[in-house]
Amino acid sequence: MKNDVRCYSPPAFILCIIALLLSAHALAREKRQMVRLAKIAVDSAHLESYKDLLTEEIEASVRLEPGVLTLYAVAEKEHPTHLTILEIYADTAAYKTHLQTLHFIKYKTGTKEMVKSLELIAADPLVPGMKIK
Amino acid sequence: MKNDVRCYSPPAFILCIIALLLSAHALAREKRQMVRLAKIAVDSAHLESYKDLLTEEIEASVRLEPGVLTLYAVAEKEHPTHLTILEIYADTAAYKTHLQTLHFIKYKTGTKEMVKSLELIAADPLVPGMKIK
Repeated sequence: MKNDVRCYSPPAFILCIIALLLSAHALAREKRQMVRLAKIAVDSAHLESYKDLLTEEIEASVRLEPGVLTLYAVAEKEHPTHLTILEIYADTAAYKTHLQTLHFIKYKTGTKEMVKSLELIAADPLVPGMKIK
Repeated sequence: MKNDVRCYSPPAFILCIIALLLSAHALAREKRQMVRLAKIAVDSAHLESYKDLLTEEIEASVRLEPGVLTLYAVAEKEHPTHLTILEIYADTAAYKTHLQTLHFIKYKTGTKEMVKSLELIAADPLVPGMKIK
């Protein structure tokens, strides 16, 4: 085993089985995740309003929806109207639920005229389960 | 206060001061963070070797370096040779230390001939302190 625990004695063997089951469960959970990059270009005339609406939407989503694992949004320093969001959902069901929340609908309708382009890029994480310290 | 704690009695007042100091400390820490997107195009002939070396480097960096807060790497499903890494460092000093680690140097030299292009994009997070659940 990776963590070098010896599984010889009966109690240790039971602990090893539990550890293996937990590990398999975590792997299965990570496999179901939906990971995506959203690339957004915003009309510069509406940048501050757009960022306010997106911030509100992100904070509500992460706080209220257990299946929204992160929405990590960044604006490029050189091109502040270019934003990228790393989106991680627990599974596609969590994503579908997210689309129907009031806070997402408020953001989507409120920013419709502010967004110049939107590219959604489905992605595979290299190290599933990676966190932010 | 945001969490609606009343600070009227002396013990509550002291707790409020501590909460404010902790909050100011967290804000200052988040302000120092260095956030970046790395966009990498890999030679398709070396994709698997490249991903192995990058995975090894990411796992070592996050495990061994307290100042590497995350290296969240994704490969595009439609273009698997196109990778993006969300890089978050505690500060620029942590980034400079990272560049001198053996695991980073091993990755950088080992993948030199595999990388077709590399774009490093300095970025500002919209919600600093955002985590991955």
